[in-house]
Amino acid sequence: MDIRKESLKKHYEWKGKISIKANVKADTAEALSLAYTPGVAEPCLAIKDDINKSYELTRRWNTVAVITDGTAILGLGDIGPEAGMPVMEGKCLLFKEYGDIDAIPLCIRSKDTDEIVRTISLLLGSFGGVNLEDIAAPRCFEIERRLKEISDIPIFHDDQHGTAVIALAALINSLRLTGKKTDEIKVIINGAGAAGCAIGRLMLSYGVKNLIFCDKNGAICDGDVQMHSEHEALAKISNPNHEKGTLRDIIKGADVFFGLSRPHLVDADMVKSMNKDAVIFAMANPEPEILPDEAKAAGARIVGTGRSDYPNQINNVLAFPGIFRGALDVRASDINEEMKIAAAHALASLISDSELADDYILPKAFDPRVKDAVASAVAKAAKDSGVARI
Amino acid sequence: MDIRKESLKKHYEWKGKISIKANVKADTAEALSLAYTPGVAEPCLAIKDDINKSYELTRRWNTVAVITDGTAILGLGDIGPEAGMPVMEGKCLLFKEYGDIDAIPLCIRSKDTDEIVRTISLLLGSFGGVNLEDIAAPRCFEIERRLKEISDIPIFHDDQHGTAVIALAALINSLRLTGKKTDEIKVIINGAGAAGCAIGRLMLSYGVKNLIFCDKNGAICDGDVQMHSEHEALAKISNPNHEKGTLRDIIKGADVFFGLSRPHLVDADMVKSMNKDAVIFAMANPEPEILPDEAKAAGARIVGTGRSDYPNQINNVLAFPGIFRGALDVRASDINEEMKIAAAHALASLISDSELADDYILPKAFDPRVKDAVASAVAKAAKDSGVARI
Repeated sequence: MDIRKESLKKHYEWKGKISIKANVKADTAEALSLAYTPGVAEPCLAIKDDINKSYELTRRWNTVAVITDGTAILGLGDIGPEAGMPVMEGKCLLFKEYGDIDAIPLCIRSKDTDEIVRTISLLLGSFGGVNLEDIAAPRCFEIERRLKEISDIPIFHDDQHGTAVIALAALINSLRLTGKKTDEIKVIINGAGAAGCAIGRLMLSYGVKNLIFCDKNGAICDGDVQMHSEHEALAKISNPNHEKGTLRDIIKGADVFFGLSRPHLVDADMVKSMNKDAVIFAMANPEPEILPDEAKAAGARIVGTGRSDYPNQINNVLAFPGIFRGALDVRASDINEEMKIAAAHALASLISDSELADDYILPKAFDPRVKDAVASAVAKAAKDSGVARI
Repeated sequence: MDIRKESLKKHYEWKGKISIKANVKADTAEALSLAYTPGVAEPCLAIKDDINKSYELTRRWNTVAVITDGTAILGLGDIGPEAGMPVMEGKCLLFKEYGDIDAIPLCIRSKDTDEIVRTISLLLGSFGGVNLEDIAAPRCFEIERRLKEISDIPIFHDDQHGTAVIALAALINSLRLTGKKTDEIKVIINGAGAAGCAIGRLMLSYGVKNLIFCDKNGAICDGDVQMHSEHEALAKISNPNHEKGTLRDIIKGADVFFGLSRPHLVDADMVKSMNKDAVIFAMANPEPEILPDEAKAAGARIVGTGRSDYPNQINNVLAFPGIFRGALDVRASDINEEMKIAAAHALASLISDSELADDYILPKAFDPRVKDAVASAVAKAAKDSGVARI
């Protein structure tokens, strides 16, 4: 089956993957007067008196906006807001299926950071959280940062942080297998876009010391010129030994490689130059930086990709539904580092010592335990870190 | 039963009157690959190539945004965007129940016309239509006018135009009963806010010649000073005989009175001063300008209110679901005067000559024929007037 052709055919049949469901009857005069006028005046006034009641008297407690500007849709690039909608609807479908969350897809007709920030900020009262999706880097960093500063609800760019959480879970279980220590390993992040930056930052939060970001110009190093502000910030907190050079130069002696770059950028010699028990996550889609068989043949111990037809799939559906479920359950005002690390630990811990193996370091996307495990860990971390409101 | 107290209790039980429903399974690897990555790339690219495909490959064809700024919620005034949400959810519930339309409630945290217009304009690609709701006059006029100028989808302020359509249906059937002619009657619109202005304008479009708007300062008349721009525009197209004075002065000899003002503003003497077979729509809520019994005792022949416990209820649910259903069905770019008048005719025509009576001039809110009758009339009018796109 040609998946893409079949998907197009199905989309014509479906005519939209989500719809609105009425939870209440409105088919009699009495039902109308309770759900709408004149009765509805009372819940309105209750919220006017205490805005927190919006979480009890409307669907806000369970509603997340899934928002894009259409500039980085899948690997297709800037295809426009309307063309991004099939992905947004798909994401909302996953929110429902895997998190029991009501997610609403919104496409913004602007590429202007100020306008996007302002538009989303004016809508925050309608939602319990915002999931930013497929917004191009580096704009996505500023949009998220500015929204987080002003928002009273969680702002979460899944392409960054959802991916980072799963990458951290994969790292945690790789270290369980190899016995290496977080603060002693050397980690390479190849590709410093939205996902790469977030993965690196979360690993640094987690305690990795020797981490190097690398892009098409080579290792990102403090003192380099002509970096955009996000890369400048990364340079200051990473690459402590000021390593310079190409990926081939800096991958030498590395313990862990994360690829968020392009197909076939990594060859067997590069893998051979890594430390013993090398761990490789080749997440370029659909063709990874190096195929698992090739990486293993060159000596890598653990290999993961973004694909479902190889072991150790880094699949975002493992993280975002449970993360938002947990955040919504405690009415969190933010999704912070503590909550992301808790989510990663919860994912990693689902695999027992006896199950853990080089080819099984992450739960499967359809493991029914995932949502609740992640959600309860995230909710607890929200409470412990002071961002829970109930 | 105290409806408002009971409604509050129910709202705490409901925790939101609408939710998102998944129309597609996403519980296996294959299902995921069709509804989401990698398959979803294909419908995305199809929309990129032809933006109209967004109506075939996503839910846009059936999706309407219900948007407020929270400034004129029911009769409660400016209670804030979050406090308006119970009404917006209720409206979305009615869209589903009476129009089978997926409506999404959005509350905007701004009272600035420019910002509201800009915010909504940037979201238009996500929807097949926009229903503005409970936005204060006169801001609502400018917001709607400016959005209609730039929008490729219908913009409809229901408080104005939905009410106007039903008022026109009521007028049409009143004239059937009294035998008076549209271009000969004198009509008073008391209260020149959102609904009053729209009712008057639609009646003028329909062919009423002698129509006078009246507000708390009395008759609105060309040449008056200190009017805001909407009232200035109304003055130019109404009150052809330049009548001046209070409501008590100008109601003399009137055939039809529409009240969108305050309780008990009209007394028996005023009704007695009207023309024979006087028609009175006293729509102030919950207490009308004059109670039906009192108006009838003073000689009025036909009386309607906004209440369900009296005959001839002007209830917006009669109009907006069918109007949007018809507009969406032909992918209309606008909801224009022709479509509104067609909707009014369709509503009026549902009552046969043999059924038509002073106490039965409008279909009941729960009449199952309403949606299809209105929708097909509106769709036809959209085609005939050139705004249908399929």
